[in-house]
Formats: sequence, C-alpha cells, structure tokens
Amino acid sequence: MPQKQVPLVVIKRLPRYHRYLGELINNKIYRISSTELSSKMGVTASQIRQDLNYFGGFGQQGYGYNVELLYAAIGDILGLNRCHKTIIIGAGNLGRALANYGGFSKRGFVVSGLFDTDPSVVGTTHAGLTVLPYSSVDEFIMTEKPDIAILAVPKANASQVAEHLVSCGIKALWNFAYVDLKLPEDVVVENAHLSDSLMTLSYRMSKQEKF
Amino acid sequence: MPQKQVPLVVIKRLPRYHRYLGELINNKIYRISSTELSSKMGVTASQIRQDLNYFGGFGQQGYGYNVELLYAAIGDILGLNRCHKTIIIGAGNLGRALANYGGFSKRGFVVSGLFDTDPSVVGTTHAGLTVLPYSSVDEFIMTEKPDIAILAVPKANASQVAEHLVSCGIKALWNFAYVDLKLPEDVVVENAHLSDSLMTLSYRMSKQEKF
Repeated sequence: MPQKQVPLVVIKRLPRYHRYLGELINNKIYRISSTELSSKMGVTASQIRQDLNYFGGFGQQGYGYNVELLYAAIGDILGLNRCHKTIIIGAGNLGRALANYGGFSKRGFVVSGLFDTDPSVVGTTHAGLTVLPYSSVDEFIMTEKPDIAILAVPKANASQVAEHLVSCGIKALWNFAYVDLKLPEDVVVENAHLSDSLMTLSYRMSKQEKF
Repeated sequence: MPQKQVPLVVIKRLPRYHRYLGELINNKIYRISSTELSSKMGVTASQIRQDLNYFGGFGQQGYGYNVELLYAAIGDILGLNRCHKTIIIGAGNLGRALANYGGFSKRGFVVSGLFDTDPSVVGTTHAGLTVLPYSSVDEFIMTEKPDIAILAVPKANASQVAEHLVSCGIKALWNFAYVDLKLPEDVVVENAHLSDSLMTLSYRMSKQEKF
C-alpha cells in the first residue's frame, strides 16, 4: 500500500478508528460516510477525511468508506494482524489484571508467560497461567522467543529488570513502572504511565475545561 | 501567577517535568540549567525553555531554574496541591491494583471507597479498604462527597455505571473501560485506554521506529 509519512498524532488516533470500525462490523454496518463516522466519534468529518487519507483511497465520493477494508487496513498498519507472543513480569494485582484482560489476545497479543520473584506467588494460577519464577525468564525467552515483555514490577526494580530482559533478547517493552527506562535505541518502549493520566485529569478538574 | 493559554501538548508534558523535578529535590539538587534538565530528560533544552516559559519567570539567565519553586508551580498548575477524594468502582484485579498503588495518595488522590457488585468480593479488604456493595454508592457519594470516581468495571457496564455516578453528583471520571463515555459537558472524563497504548506499541514494533 502506498504510504506517506504518517504523523504521530494521526497514529495515536488510529486505535480509536479501529475500535469504532470494529463496532460497526459487529453491528453489520459495512459502509459509512465520514459525516456519520464523525457524529459517532465526536471528531470533525474533515479530520476523519484528512486522517484516513494517509492510508490510501478507502473512501469514495458519494459512497463513503468500505468499513471492512478500512478496518483491515488500519489493523495492518497497527501491526494487529500478526501474533505477538507476550510475557508479563510481575504477578501482583496489576500483572494479574493484565493477564486476565481479554482484549489483548483479540488483538493478537498472546500472553505466554507470567513471572514473579515472590516465592508465595510463584506457582499460583491466573487466567490459566501458572506464575513462573523470574529466575527462569532467561531460559523461557531463549526457547519461547516472546516479542514483548510487559513490565508490571515496582518502580525500584524496573530499570534493572528491563535491562536484564533486553540482554536476554526482548526488543519491545510495555512499561507500567513510573520511571523512564534508558535502553538501547533499537528497543521499543511504550510507557503506560498511569500517574501522568491522573495528573492530566487533575489539571482538567482544576480548570474544569475539556480539551 | 500570570498564565498564557497553555497548549494541550505542553500540559501533557508537565507531569513528566513534575516527576523529574521531584527526583532532583529528593537528590538535594535545588538549581538546574535547562541544558542539564535536557540531558536528564532526553528533551531539547530549547523545548524545555519554551515549555516552562508558559509558567512565568522561574528560570534566570546564568542561574538556571529554581527547582523547588518550579516544582511547586507545576504542582499548582496540575492541581496536585489539593486533596481529591477518590472512589474506585470495581474491585477486580485492576481496581485492587489501583487501590494498592501508593503513588496516588502522594499526589493528593486519596481513595476513600472501593465498590463492587459481586457479593463474593464485597466485604473483602484491599489496601486497608473494605469493599462496599455498589448499591450503597449513592449514599456514600451524598455523605462523603468524593471528587473523582475511577471506573474499573467491565466494558459492558461502564456507560450505565458512569451515568449513574454522574446522576449522584460525580464530576470527574477516570475511565479504564475500553469505551468512550457520553456524558454531560461539565463532567471531566480522562480515559486510560490501555489497548490504545498497546496498539501504539504494536505499530512501533511493526515499524521498529521510535518517535
């Protein structure tokens, strides 16, 4: 597919398009105009046209968008049509919540290992996964070759654990610890810093503004 | 404090400045140049100067920033110096993880109630909070007047629960359910859509690009 350089702000909006288009397909709606999509999503029709224009000619004048084609194309761009083998480091409440979250596997993220250092947690089962000792993670990565490690460990251990995982061959980290990791350039790190989101909420409450 | 209209992108960066400045104070560093702050944060010095310029003259030529003043000012802008009474709806793994997260109370978010509909969960204790039945939330909101409700409920129930909480008087929601809530204009909603973050990770893995 011919693809222009897509700005980050547009990329960040794609998951939401993907979600809406998926809901349309669930509701057996296979064609939609940018105006209809606009009123559903609370985004201007012109922004939708601009955004989706980056991904080639899925919209036709007077016809609207072919929902299934567009859904597939965006899924493709987001890399959702591949299967990502995922491990979770840390089997506390957050790690368990993530292991139990059904939305991941639907998007191709399959959790194949759950690790913890705490002997009282190792051996317990969550979402069909038995918690493995963190000391076995090297071997697991070597044999199972997971793509992604989810970091659900305390802030104090996060950098050390991340460096260790990268030394074992992990190339992508989804980091829930509230610390900015310093890792080699070729490692992809996506931070899910919940506190930042909470502070934004706090700011907006103090302004009582919406943006 | 004289304040210009601050763009959203700058606001979104403030929590990170706040975090770094807090670490500097912990390390007894009370003065820092934009160049030093830049190398620590991996942001250009000129962006730091531009960003912080919105909040008045905390930097002085040849002196750098007064870390404590700047930390306090950003905390003030983010509304962190107020106390926000918070309730959590949903005491599953995610709700428990959030209840256990120590970082919130440090920022003035005090969890005063944890609610669930599941009779097998009601009455159990997490992070010092006994799970209350969701049927008692109306009265709790009336008497305790929490500012924020954290929505850690399944996607299918999220809209209904949100509308109910708003009808009880809740004015701010931190929403973890993967659904866009449609609520009155004066209700502040901050979405923590984990799947969107995961899809961004997936996209970046498929590009092996960092932005």
